[in-house]
Amino acid sequence: VIQRLSREQQLIQDIFAPLAADNPGAFGLHDDAALLTCDLDTDLVITKDALVEDVHFYADDPPDLIARKALRVNLSDLAAKGAEPRHYLLSLALSERCDRTWIEKFAEGLAQDQAAYGCQLMGGDTVSSRGSISMSITAIGTVPKGEMKRRHGAQAGHLIYVSGTVGDSLLGLKVRGGELFHGPSTASDRAFLADRYLLPQPRVDFVPAIRRHASAAMDVSDGLVGDLELLCAASGMSGEVDLTQVAFSPAARSILEGGLTTLEELVTGGDDYELLFTVPPNSVYAMEGAARRLSAPISRIGRVISGSDAPSFFGEDGALMTFEKPSYSHLD
Amino acid sequence: VIQRLSREQQLIQDIFAPLAADNPGAFGLHDDAALLTCDLDTDLVITKDALVEDVHFYADDPPDLIARKALRVNLSDLAAKGAEPRHYLLSLALSERCDRTWIEKFAEGLAQDQAAYGCQLMGGDTVSSRGSISMSITAIGTVPKGEMKRRHGAQAGHLIYVSGTVGDSLLGLKVRGGELFHGPSTASDRAFLADRYLLPQPRVDFVPAIRRHASAAMDVSDGLVGDLELLCAASGMSGEVDLTQVAFSPAARSILEGGLTTLEELVTGGDDYELLFTVPPNSVYAMEGAARRLSAPISRIGRVISGSDAPSFFGEDGALMTFEKPSYSHLD
Repeated sequence: VIQRLSREQQLIQDIFAPLAADNPGAFGLHDDAALLTCDLDTDLVITKDALVEDVHFYADDPPDLIARKALRVNLSDLAAKGAEPRHYLLSLALSERCDRTWIEKFAEGLAQDQAAYGCQLMGGDTVSSRGSISMSITAIGTVPKGEMKRRHGAQAGHLIYVSGTVGDSLLGLKVRGGELFHGPSTASDRAFLADRYLLPQPRVDFVPAIRRHASAAMDVSDGLVGDLELLCAASGMSGEVDLTQVAFSPAARSILEGGLTTLEELVTGGDDYELLFTVPPNSVYAMEGAARRLSAPISRIGRVISGSDAPSFFGEDGALMTFEKPSYSHLD
Repeated sequence: VIQRLSREQQLIQDIFAPLAADNPGAFGLHDDAALLTCDLDTDLVITKDALVEDVHFYADDPPDLIARKALRVNLSDLAAKGAEPRHYLLSLALSERCDRTWIEKFAEGLAQDQAAYGCQLMGGDTVSSRGSISMSITAIGTVPKGEMKRRHGAQAGHLIYVSGTVGDSLLGLKVRGGELFHGPSTASDRAFLADRYLLPQPRVDFVPAIRRHASAAMDVSDGLVGDLELLCAASGMSGEVDLTQVAFSPAARSILEGGLTTLEELVTGGDDYELLFTVPPNSVYAMEGAARRLSAPISRIGRVISGSDAPSFFGEDGALMTFEKPSYSHLD
């Protein structure tokens, strides 16, 4: 059948439809909407995060990395809920600088992460923007029925864990903005940190362990301290946290020791995309074993206690720390 | 429990959480993701459309109308698939001009349309933008299992229909841009047209009739001619369309007759958000009766024929019309 497509439609068919090729409910991106079938044994978990130019990325960042970050911040939310990634929808607002090569690179990034994480494009749209580039992804994952992990569920005596290292992305943003080029950091430290800002590593491989062993979980995206306050509040609990137990990367540690950042800054900055979770004492052995088998570091940083106060955070020499601003906030 | 919230979190709890209050899977917008449960008798239909400043709306448009347009363009896609709206997720990138009052008005618009269309907020996020305002909505609807309406399914002899009037939104955009202020249009015509641009009327009330009587359906969002070409192509069919049978509003007709627009422009402009659908001959009586009962005008504009050519469009005096650009395209 002869079909005249607009440039927009042609672009979608050429560049984005291949990303949906193995997703029957996407109908080759040829229809107004996608079909999401369900089965009785499964719940769907859905999340949606936007990225905008000059906030979450810079317009001259490699387009494939922008795309992968957009997908990964959503996969991090799914992982925190114990959900395996399945589908995603993309809305992409393109500015004038986004030529066909840019868009192709963007789609290549998505293709790479689809393969890595086992999910497929399902729909969305592409629009032109007179101003900045922006995008949002809606990601859909599955959990066995009734097994979505929540932020509540932490009980007194449960241990508090965080995966990976914290604060790297915040420092990476500074590197990206031209800071930290003098002093204690090396070129390879700076490259490592910039990469942590550009390309989060969502802990999708943790999904089975989170589902099996965690009592509560969330992803750390707005700062460890503020996010832990939310988890404790959601659980109706308080907590005691030893911030000296939080793992920092060698790069972050050398900048910290060089006096160019502070413990406070590292544990209240955003964009970590690590997992914060609590584990009942009788599951600690199993959870730590699972993390070892994944070669994925987790740090036991504190414990849940009863009470209605915000959790207490202790720093060097066991001193109680207070935080004026426990989270990154978009609207401050 | 004492809880310190950032300004962003406080805003979400104050302004957006009430929109999710009756949606159990949204968890009060207190978690990383939402839970979408399924049942055996139902399929979910999902769609996602973005709106950006200076393309789909202007920054000084009333925020409640911007919000309602963002929701409605998605509900229009669901309606075209025969799906009842249920849930939606919102990503909102706020520029500096969006103060608390702006955001409250925006949420009021959503509240109004949630009540009108029977859907509920389920999740999303709010971020700051250094540039323009942008947003996207992911809307989720339900259809009885296997009954999602598709673009294919039109067969030779089926009649082609379009709901409502076409071209008003395109003229409304011109009015909004300061055009059409002289000549044949009256102030009330201009207000009507501007309103059609600002606030689409998704044909959600058509959902049962579309599901029961249409053989193929899509929403008209990029221009009637181009969209009908897509529907025919998806069905592997051609068509014959009498464009003089398309309904135009009195306002559009007076501008057309005054020579300030053309038939071609009206049937190839975007943003109509009407339904385009085909009906087998033995369902024509039932479909037209259903439309009458809804007091919703539909126009029979042509019929599907076999063939692999693009459909033929006839204008005044039965003359064959050709269109250089059958659709609005974001990337031309």
